Amino acid sequence: MIKVGIVGISGYSGRTTLDILLKHPNVRVTYVSANNTTGKISDIWPHLRNKTTLTCDKFDLDKATELCDLLFLAVPHTVSMTITPKLLKAKKRIIDLSGDYRLKAKTEYKKWYGAEHTDSSNLSKAVYGLPELYREEIKKAELISNPGCYPTAAIIGIAPLAATQYDSIKSIIIDAKSGVTGAGRKVIPGLIFSEVNENFKAYKVLNHQHTPEINLYLSKLAGADVDVTFVPHLLPINVGILETIYIQLNNKMSLGDVVTLYTKFYKTEKFVRVLPAGQQPEIKNVVGTNYCDLGLAVDEKKNLLVVTAAIDNLMKGAAGQAVQNMNIMCLFEETQALI
Amino acid sequence: MIKVGIVGISGYSGRTTLDILLKHPNVRVTYVSANNTTGKISDIWPHLRNKTTLTCDKFDLDKATELCDLLFLAVPHTVSMTITPKLLKAKKRIIDLSGDYRLKAKTEYKKWYGAEHTDSSNLSKAVYGLPELYREEIKKAELISNPGCYPTAAIIGIAPLAATQYDSIKSIIIDAKSGVTGAGRKVIPGLIFSEVNENFKAYKVLNHQHTPEINLYLSKLAGADVDVTFVPHLLPINVGILETIYIQLNNKMSLGDVVTLYTKFYKTEKFVRVLPAGQQPEIKNVVGTNYCDLGLAVDEKKNLLVVTAAIDNLMKGAAGQAVQNMNIMCLFEETQALI
Amino acid sequence: MIKVGIVGISGYSGRTTLDILLKHPNVRVTYVSANNTTGKISDIWPHLRNKTTLTCDKFDLDKATELCDLLFLAVPHTVSMTITPKLLKAKKRIIDLSGDYRLKAKTEYKKWYGAEHTDSSNLSKAVYGLPELYREEIKKAELISNPGCYPTAAIIGIAPLAATQYDSIKSIIIDAKSGVTGAGRKVIPGLIFSEVNENFKAYKVLNHQHTPEINLYLSKLAGADVDVTFVPHLLPINVGILETIYIQLNNKMSLGDVVTLYTKFYKTEKFVRVLPAGQQPEIKNVVGTNYCDLGLAVDEKKNLLVVTAAIDNLMKGAAGQAVQNMNIMCLFEETQALI
Amino acid sequence: MIKVGIVGISGYSGRTTLDILLKHPNVRVTYVSANNTTGKISDIWPHLRNKTTLTCDKFDLDKATELCDLLFLAVPHTVSMTITPKLLKAKKRIIDLSGDYRLKAKTEYKKWYGAEHTDSSNLSKAVYGLPELYREEIKKAELISNPGCYPTAAIIGIAPLAATQYDSIKSIIIDAKSGVTGAGRKVIPGLIFSEVNENFKAYKVLNHQHTPEINLYLSKLAGADVDVTFVPHLLPINVGILETIYIQLNNKMSLGDVVTLYTKFYKTEKFVRVLPAGQQPEIKNVVGTNYCDLGLAVDEKKNLLVVTAAIDNLMKGAAGQAVQNMNIMCLFEETQALI
Repeated sequence: MIKVGIVGISGYSGRTTLDILLKHPNVRVTYVSANNTTGKISDIWPHLRNKTTLTCDKFDLDKATELCDLLFLAVPHTVSMTITPKLLKAKKRIIDLSGDYRLKAKTEYKKWYGAEHTDSSNLSKAVYGLPELYREEIKKAELISNPGCYPTAAIIGIAPLAATQYDSIKSIIIDAKSGVTGAGRKVIPGLIFSEVNENFKAYKVLNHQHTPEINLYLSKLAGADVDVTFVPHLLPINVGILETIYIQLNNKMSLGDVVTLYTKFYKTEKFVRVLPAGQQPEIKNVVGTNYCDLGLAVDEKKNLLVVTAAIDNLMKGAAGQAVQNMNIMCLFEETQALI
Repeated sequence: MIKVGIVGISGYSGRTTLDILLKHPNVRVTYVSANNTTGKISDIWPHLRNKTTLTCDKFDLDKATELCDLLFLAVPHTVSMTITPKLLKAKKRIIDLSGDYRLKAKTEYKKWYGAEHTDSSNLSKAVYGLPELYREEIKKAELISNPGCYPTAAIIGIAPLAATQYDSIKSIIIDAKSGVTGAGRKVIPGLIFSEVNENFKAYKVLNHQHTPEINLYLSKLAGADVDVTFVPHLLPINVGILETIYIQLNNKMSLGDVVTLYTKFYKTEKFVRVLPAGQQPEIKNVVGTNYCDLGLAVDEKKNLLVVTAAIDNLMKGAAGQAVQNMNIMCLFEETQALI
Repeated sequence: MIKVGIVGISGYSGRTTLDILLKHPNVRVTYVSANNTTGKISDIWPHLRNKTTLTCDKFDLDKATELCDLLFLAVPHTVSMTITPKLLKAKKRIIDLSGDYRLKAKTEYKKWYGAEHTDSSNLSKAVYGLPELYREEIKKAELISNPGCYPTAAIIGIAPLAATQYDSIKSIIIDAKSGVTGAGRKVIPGLIFSEVNENFKAYKVLNHQHTPEINLYLSKLAGADVDVTFVPHLLPINVGILETIYIQLNNKMSLGDVVTLYTKFYKTEKFVRVLPAGQQPEIKNVVGTNYCDLGLAVDEKKNLLVVTAAIDNLMKGAAGQAVQNMNIMCLFEETQALI
Repeated sequence: MIKVGIVGISGYSGRTTLDILLKHPNVRVTYVSANNTTGKISDIWPHLRNKTTLTCDKFDLDKATELCDLLFLAVPHTVSMTITPKLLKAKKRIIDLSGDYRLKAKTEYKKWYGAEHTDSSNLSKAVYGLPELYREEIKKAELISNPGCYPTAAIIGIAPLAATQYDSIKSIIIDAKSGVTGAGRKVIPGLIFSEVNENFKAYKVLNHQHTPEINLYLSKLAGADVDVTFVPHLLPINVGILETIYIQLNNKMSLGDVVTLYTKFYKTEKFVRVLPAGQQPEIKNVVGTNYCDLGLAVDEKKNLLVVTAAIDNLMKGAAGQAVQNMNIMCLFEETQALI
């Protein structure tokens, strides 16, 4: 039984982390905090009435350190890098759900997140928490940088090809669609119900901060510079991401070949489901789960592969994956509390 | 051709008023203003690109006075009563969509709107703009107090009985459900998409500020004190209100009698459609229209009448009715730009 | 470990029952069937890919009997009463989610379900599976008639008063709103997306088949004839019911009294949450759970109590309650797989 | 004043055509028919209560011929080609909203629509009703083949480049998203509310029947073989299409150049709005209108142009464009009843 804290409990990722951990047999949640609200968790999140007696305070380093073995940081970017060094110094293990430790170059962080990075030393130590690629590193990590929601689906959708035959890839276009919780629980005009409902639009076209993250980890995998085109869109639903990924190939590849390649690549992965040829993933089939579902189609005349990847942005795209990382770090069953 | 202004163009009621007036052959919109935003209307409301060259400024009394014959005030309550006296003094006709001139007792205003009423003199002069009841008064009015969305459906749904045989009514319960634009374009946590979508709840139970408005005008109609029970709910849709009204009767009344009574009462009304026995109104049938659809059912054993009333809260519940009032005041065809 | 079958796996109640049972440590699902589809469960319900290898056939009595100790019948009404007698004869325990065994008078069944009841003997033996009222009977039951979704919320919302001080109740009006899965997975014009979305309406006004069920069990509880007024509405959401219940009282009762009464009545109940005065239940707080949340408000001037009750229609309103009943019958922890 | 008929009034396109024509000052709708329903239009489409006394019968050639000068055919494909020759012989002008006359090669029709084409002679005579490209031909046409919804947005989005500098185009990928009415009013399991709501998926991947239509008309425009990649997706909204079009260029082009090119190309078009650099179209801004809104973005490093095109699939994508065609054919103001 480990003692776990969640910093940033008032957002959707923090809440979902708590929802999962309350069902986890090896975990006791001993500490929760937020900076914009305090009080009983069952008042902040009424669906948890009668399920927890936890109380939320403003973040207190001493209390967090005293009460927890491991902490989930579900805070906005720039906040995480001020807390993380102190918690690491106190020998706590950290799973950071923010974007603070994902990009490795400080210049890139500055460019995409608009702030100076203030924790260089840990930036290089942080392990990117995508278990399908970095399971061994995660086992030994002190600091996990939990992947962004879009990058999770994108990298899982492209990895089999990027890892095994990167030379085949000529260009990659990712047309991504996300439910509204992907933007967090922000109270801004563009997210009020009557502006989003019955609407659909692209946003941050060619300019989203998850682009360099996708490029960085695909490049590592490919051993070459990957530079994807990424256009996100806002879906009028609560949760779920579907990415339609167009991979222009340099050579012929049949649908059968591709299905075989992907199936083999993810054969032992519990949370990736490669669908048979002809089937397409749907967001409703992954909502509330930690799965990433992958669909495959090929235009053999054009040497074009179309990968469709679906995840729940709060589960495999955030809290679910974070708990998966914890399970790996703590040597629990990897699927514990997640299936 | 009259010159019309809209004060409060950045909200949904103001926008809908403009949408309607741009199609009105007898109206030129010469002035629009808002206090939380300025600039080209086509930037504020991009659906109007290429349809208008209007520009929005902060409210300016002199400009408004100079440019307009008649003004729609689509502003928050308490704002209207500071502007209205000045515009009336300048001999402008006013249609006020806020709650400021609906309740006639200043104590009631204080109780339900939480502020002192500062314009007593006009409070008594304002005509309640429900054409189905006050058409003659509207024709001569300088100041129209445009009804609230909930009261519009409620009063139209109850009026035939209240006006013709009030003695039959023992008690009235109004279970009301409204789409999200009924709350205006407020940027508050409770109205962000992921809090409202796939959700439903009652709010301000037994405590909504439209309750005294319903009571006041039904009482006038009945010549007796009416005291309804009113419980509103928030529907996860953009527009539309459906009210299910339970009227406990003192005496037997058949469904046929009721349908006859209602049909006769609204025989010459262009915007009220009484459905035949057995049919129920649906929000989708009134969305985008100025209609109020009424359905009728009777439990003869219990002497209970169930009236269902549907409107578009931004049309018959706000801007549509406001334009209907303008049409009456200006002796235009009452349905002009509305059918 | 008991062996359990689900008859009617292609509908939403059957699917939800399976979703829950796959997480139940004391249950092995050994049999699933449907009459309108066959094949691998992971093809019928793709969200279950990799989670089950079950295969669905047309219902086969011998196979069902051989493979199961207990069966859930998630079939349309009239189907259940043809299967149940045979399964009972084979000494199987049955939890019937259809309406077939809820009404006790065959004339009432005929009137509301439009068919002759063909299994009188078991009609009288069936135990109504509302654990909050019939836990002891459920323990010993061979045949459970699982309550309807609307009656579950209604009876839980009214029971504290009906059971302890029925004389206080003068009349009851239930204004009910349900998400679309409440209608099952019917492929009919009225349920296609573009007819339901952005819409809201009342249906079967004063004429819904759940009305006599509510009356029957409230009457038993009160020891007197209860005759509620019931009007259901269709919400444009997937799951969830909210009922706003207007109870006209014969005598004064303060909000404090009512909250105390309800809190005490449900003190030991794990799945009923009585909210403090001033708070209202919301559908989103019960979705995916087996809870019934209750809100209370009182108009002391009118002696009117307003109870609001929220459930997930597929959980506490169907499959969740069915599993709760199974847990009780099998002496498992009552909350097993449900919290 | 011309006399107009609508064949196929029970579907969404037929209904929308009627909605528009009821506001058209130069048109009298004299005939409506459907083959799956009959009766008063106000019963079939209750939103039209009190607005029309039209009655719907099964299609009757003699009656249609006698009562109409011009007919809109809003019928399923294969039905249109059996009616059209007879109506043309009777000297009626036809606007066909089905797919029957869009593809010019009978083999292509067979391949994509799964049926033999039985009206070769008119196939070649039909004019493709995209006014932005074929206005002059439309003026003189007897038979208009009204474009598909997806092709309308795609062709308008690509035409400026395809028409003026096709050599710049290397490849085109169209990632399309459509609201549910795009599928018509089909009563099939995949379109019921609880299957579509809170869901999103790709369908007919690389295999949609609108692909050859897009290719055909872009090829004509370019004077070269165009072969786009087309992947449609189903949005959980009622109406609206957004297409994100990735055009790989052979040469450098700045965002400024592209905006200038598009703006110039559509300078005199009333229903195409090219947004300034940095702005993106949104479905809500075109819903209920006949506009196509275009957004432009360029990745100058990759020579990649991203065009986003938004339309209302029932307006510019079907009925609105059909009426626009009628206006042109009849020498009415082109925007009549549409702005």
